[in-house]
Amino acid sequence: MAIDYKKELISAAKTMILVHDLRLLIRIIVRTIVQKVKVTHAGILLFDKGKESFVLTVSRGSKGLRIPEGFARMDNSNPLIRFFTLRLDRKILKDGSLTTREAKRKLKDKKLKPAQKQLLKAAIYQMEIFEAVVCIPSYFHDELLGILLLGEKKNGRDFKNDELDFFAALASDVAMAIRNAQLFNELQQELDKKHHLFIHTTIALAVAIDAKDHYTHGHTSRVTQLSLEIAKKLMKKNRKKFDDKMIEQLHIASLLHDIGKIGIPESILNKDGPLDETEQNRIKEHPIIGATILNPIKELGDAILGVKYHHEKYDGSGYPEGLKGKQIPLLASIIAVADTFDAMTTDRPYRRGLTKEEAISEIKRVSGKQLDPRIAAAFEQIYLEGKI
Amino acid sequence: MAIDYKKELISAAKTMILVHDLRLLIRIIVRTIVQKVKVTHAGILLFDKGKESFVLTVSRGSKGLRIPEGFARMDNSNPLIRFFTLRLDRKILKDGSLTTREAKRKLKDKKLKPAQKQLLKAAIYQMEIFEAVVCIPSYFHDELLGILLLGEKKNGRDFKNDELDFFAALASDVAMAIRNAQLFNELQQELDKKHHLFIHTTIALAVAIDAKDHYTHGHTSRVTQLSLEIAKKLMKKNRKKFDDKMIEQLHIASLLHDIGKIGIPESILNKDGPLDETEQNRIKEHPIIGATILNPIKELGDAILGVKYHHEKYDGSGYPEGLKGKQIPLLASIIAVADTFDAMTTDRPYRRGLTKEEAISEIKRVSGKQLDPRIAAAFEQIYLEGKI
Repeated sequence: MAIDYKKELISAAKTMILVHDLRLLIRIIVRTIVQKVKVTHAGILLFDKGKESFVLTVSRGSKGLRIPEGFARMDNSNPLIRFFTLRLDRKILKDGSLTTREAKRKLKDKKLKPAQKQLLKAAIYQMEIFEAVVCIPSYFHDELLGILLLGEKKNGRDFKNDELDFFAALASDVAMAIRNAQLFNELQQELDKKHHLFIHTTIALAVAIDAKDHYTHGHTSRVTQLSLEIAKKLMKKNRKKFDDKMIEQLHIASLLHDIGKIGIPESILNKDGPLDETEQNRIKEHPIIGATILNPIKELGDAILGVKYHHEKYDGSGYPEGLKGKQIPLLASIIAVADTFDAMTTDRPYRRGLTKEEAISEIKRVSGKQLDPRIAAAFEQIYLEGKI
Repeated sequence: MAIDYKKELISAAKTMILVHDLRLLIRIIVRTIVQKVKVTHAGILLFDKGKESFVLTVSRGSKGLRIPEGFARMDNSNPLIRFFTLRLDRKILKDGSLTTREAKRKLKDKKLKPAQKQLLKAAIYQMEIFEAVVCIPSYFHDELLGILLLGEKKNGRDFKNDELDFFAALASDVAMAIRNAQLFNELQQELDKKHHLFIHTTIALAVAIDAKDHYTHGHTSRVTQLSLEIAKKLMKKNRKKFDDKMIEQLHIASLLHDIGKIGIPESILNKDGPLDETEQNRIKEHPIIGATILNPIKELGDAILGVKYHHEKYDGSGYPEGLKGKQIPLLASIIAVADTFDAMTTDRPYRRGLTKEEAISEIKRVSGKQLDPRIAAAFEQIYLEGKI
């Protein structure tokens, strides 16, 4: 008749620490309790910072109330919440848990002030709505993080004092785990936010620079999209080489591949008519100018190579360095295919753009000459799948 | 004679979970052990991923060896490490801890294979170098995270079995806390990296755009530096209003305050001679163009206002909207002062720049007219402190 679930719950509480998914963590806790303690149901009221209120996050059991998640929401004025935030439990109860049995006994206590009595009564009523017979609060320092609600035991018996003591100790582990998960989530959210800020700022600036070149409107975003499609295709074949870091570098490189055009005079960029040789040579400086602009950014390793070499050609006839075949960095070869396709399919003042079909045959024709055949093949596949 | 330190160590281990500073965490653990368990010294060998080896992270005690932190480093070939990574402890020892006393007894065991005996001997020798009489390994799943080393007890007695059991349990809590702190640190490092990537990319693009305007070379970085100095000054007076988030927004806004110039033709921007009214009006569009470029970036709330309104004047005579006094967003007022100062002190083809002294008197003269008097006053103070 010993409390044989203790060991399992303690070990569960310890492992919980490394569960940083708050919803999953709470599910594990509630499920473990329902299974091990053999109660009709269990639930957790968890403080939701954003909503400034306590939300019934999980409610689970073989029998009894199963309130839909997130349905019950209570702010600080709720009597059950107030009972624990005012820390009336310290004055009224010896251990940390509030049981309806003990609470009803306490109501008869003559030392209890009328206001306390009224609050306790209202708290009991709230517990009855949830069909809970025990409430165990979780505090971190003095801040109420949540309340664990337990229904009756399946065998119909009362909870014993040592069980309640145990739950109070467990609740403190749970509070720690919840707090830890919250901190983790906050950090993760900050990271996601920073990532979006970075990508969106880069997009905004790239689009603004793109707009300087009147003939290539929307070019940057199209090349970026095509490059990412190519990477996704290659990723399916070789997960090791094409990881998330590489995709991020490609995203940045394709967004910024023409950034160097900012160093080319508008009079050349937007010239109404064919360029002479000097002007053509000026334009050909843009990959080097781009790499020079990005060079101080240490975190952009491969992305800078993508910018610098996106006009190299597979047979060595490109610029700025005339690199050949596998000498050309992978990101640059990807951008080159996307860039070539977009240049071919865009109208220019002196010629109409090719159709997609014509452009794809042209890409197949120059594959292995101008373009890296692996990338060109992947690009054709994407086209055949209707993704271009 | 009961082990009276247990309770304190358990409670310390629980709180540890929320210490995400790994170095601090380990210091707390070792200090608590030295104080509570009353050993001559204690240390922790911790696995360092980057260095692919175990490093003696803390070694502390009232007496005995105090190896400088980070000095002792051992890779997987070290016998003490091998003993625990090969999990010979499972075969050789009943509980998780290795004591020199038990190890020496085991050496006489005839069932021990020669290779095991040799390894155990070498491990004991390694412990003696550290003057450790007990080693307690910390595992997470089956991965060895670290080894706690304990010197002799100050009272000279041997460690009892229940003490060793207790240390083994404590080590598992410690392992969990260390693992948690490591995960936290990894996330934090990623966040820092992303932040740098974002700021440096923004700087690189801002500098590139800045370079388009031949007359204002270096303007953006000077205005950014001055704006941040002003914010630091104001921060000292009002910590609540000037928090890290606000500083970050100001940083972005000042870097990008002239971003809209990318939408102004170079022929106007770099015109050799005075501008006519139409040209002046085109230039005056740059704050609006800048705000339009940045508008899709949801995360840039206040920063966009800083860009949009940095040419407003305190008396309402500015542009684009003729905002007055407190209608002008704070970030914009700060950038306005920095921008004005830099414009006044920079040489232009048609006039020499003012000296710093002349510029400061001019700023004082227009304070409360063109410029927000609070910001102008803070700026003067920074100047008087020799920071400009």
